[in-house]
Amino acid sequence: MKIASFQHDGVDDVGIVRADGIVPLGALAENAPTSMRAALEWLPGKEFNADAADASAVIPLDAVRYLPVVPNPQGIWCAALTYLSHVREGAGRPVPDYPLFFLRVANSQLGHGEPMRLPDVSSQLDYEGELAVVIGTRGRDIPMDEALGHVAGYACYNDGSVRDWQRHTTQITMGKNFDATGGFGPWLVTPDEFGDPTSHRITTRLNGEVMQDTTVDQLLFPIEYLIHYVSTVSTLEVGDVIVTGTSGGVGLRRTPPVFMMDGDVVEVEIDGIGTLSNPVEAAPAPASGGFRAYHPTITEENLS
Amino acid sequence: MKIASFQHDGVDDVGIVRADGIVPLGALAENAPTSMRAALEWLPGKEFNADAADASAVIPLDAVRYLPVVPNPQGIWCAALTYLSHVREGAGRPVPDYPLFFLRVANSQLGHGEPMRLPDVSSQLDYEGELAVVIGTRGRDIPMDEALGHVAGYACYNDGSVRDWQRHTTQITMGKNFDATGGFGPWLVTPDEFGDPTSHRITTRLNGEVMQDTTVDQLLFPIEYLIHYVSTVSTLEVGDVIVTGTSGGVGLRRTPPVFMMDGDVVEVEIDGIGTLSNPVEAAPAPASGGFRAYHPTITEENLS
Repeated sequence: MKIASFQHDGVDDVGIVRADGIVPLGALAENAPTSMRAALEWLPGKEFNADAADASAVIPLDAVRYLPVVPNPQGIWCAALTYLSHVREGAGRPVPDYPLFFLRVANSQLGHGEPMRLPDVSSQLDYEGELAVVIGTRGRDIPMDEALGHVAGYACYNDGSVRDWQRHTTQITMGKNFDATGGFGPWLVTPDEFGDPTSHRITTRLNGEVMQDTTVDQLLFPIEYLIHYVSTVSTLEVGDVIVTGTSGGVGLRRTPPVFMMDGDVVEVEIDGIGTLSNPVEAAPAPASGGFRAYHPTITEENLS
Repeated sequence: MKIASFQHDGVDDVGIVRADGIVPLGALAENAPTSMRAALEWLPGKEFNADAADASAVIPLDAVRYLPVVPNPQGIWCAALTYLSHVREGAGRPVPDYPLFFLRVANSQLGHGEPMRLPDVSSQLDYEGELAVVIGTRGRDIPMDEALGHVAGYACYNDGSVRDWQRHTTQITMGKNFDATGGFGPWLVTPDEFGDPTSHRITTRLNGEVMQDTTVDQLLFPIEYLIHYVSTVSTLEVGDVIVTGTSGGVGLRRTPPVFMMDGDVVEVEIDGIGTLSNPVEAAPAPASGGFRAYHPTITEENLS
């Protein structure tokens, strides 16, 4: 089953994707939820057949605006350096002892088809094609052998990264959180349909050219372990997202580097899910005058 | 005005703090909101006098369970290395060019009086007393000279940090996000009552002993700049939190190091706000068997 978050006629909703379009949950059951987080709580045990719904209930795919698969997760846990091909394209980097994690805020996400925002303060917006895992059952201290039982489904993620801001300090958080840089879509595919996640292929294309290509079995840390590790720290809520990291081929590590520009189209395709596609659109300079760096005036000499 | 998030008789609510207790917003106006985020949207322009409310509407402070001041922010932006006294207690650390930021998830927070959770996987839970700034007006690209106009109020924060997990990788996110380690309370104080934030003092006590003590004017980066910097990256939503960083005296940097233990009481006091106090409580080992590290089996040699 494929489940999409979308907006239609200006109203946010959630529905089942079938060949000719999306059937809103509300057309399948009374008092059905209208958000992904609520839908993931509500769906288990429900019986319905979206393919049997009347064609009048179906919204054509080209009539919706896609929202991020989960528009408002409690936590968006993003792993880094989880593929050896990406680890080794950074000179001298060892395989890490633990997966690196940073967090994204919901405002950094965007849905399939929406413009990925190139901020006016940088020209170093990079792509990172990844597999996203959406939590369906709340849990803490989840053992590895139970981890996949907590998964509601899988989706494509493009962990858009502003490289110079990622390097302002040792912490990469800022460069990973610009508004509308984290593509998440086009929809969630449930585990029964997706099957073994490691058997899938992730391909990232920029203007049609393949930039990254990996199979999920190349993950240094299995998905079960990413769930185990994060849930040792933090209770995973329904709708929380674990983004599993990117493989080699990022723009930053190319010679010369490749960064995304206004008018580009970036795609992340995963077999069994589909293609997350986003045009890149340069943000205008803000009317407020834009960013000005501040340099501390308190130094060792004048510390009171 | 002081505004508190709390639970009473098992129901989450928000209200105005006065000398004899809390007046729920619902006792002051019809259809008043019952959450801090909604209250911060709703309050501007409203006229009421909580001091004039009948005593029957007042809930005594000892009858409530405090929630985190904002239980569910869209973003919890935490600054690090923002006081020289803390920068220089780490050997060889320079003053950073930019404030370091990491994010917390909402599940990592706890309210005043609630037990701060010492996870079973570590004995290195440390305190960090800080001033939290809560956003009241949404914005992006906020100029420094408009920044304080976006502030709804101020509160105490204890950025509880699990030091060994903070050092699993270069990214400190994991050690900063254990469940119920980020104390946030006891309530929000509005800017008209709080006045100039730099004139205030932050004192952290462990079992009554002063461990950290600073004035906010020692911030390397002014609050206005923290808001400007974050809002250059990410649209700040009503209820978002900027935690402004900690001063020297953390437990990790003491000789010998001081970490918090089961039964300790940790307090963060800021004049003009009050005292955030939390007992420390060791979490039991999970029934599931607990954390097991996984070591990657994919290496340079067997990369396919």
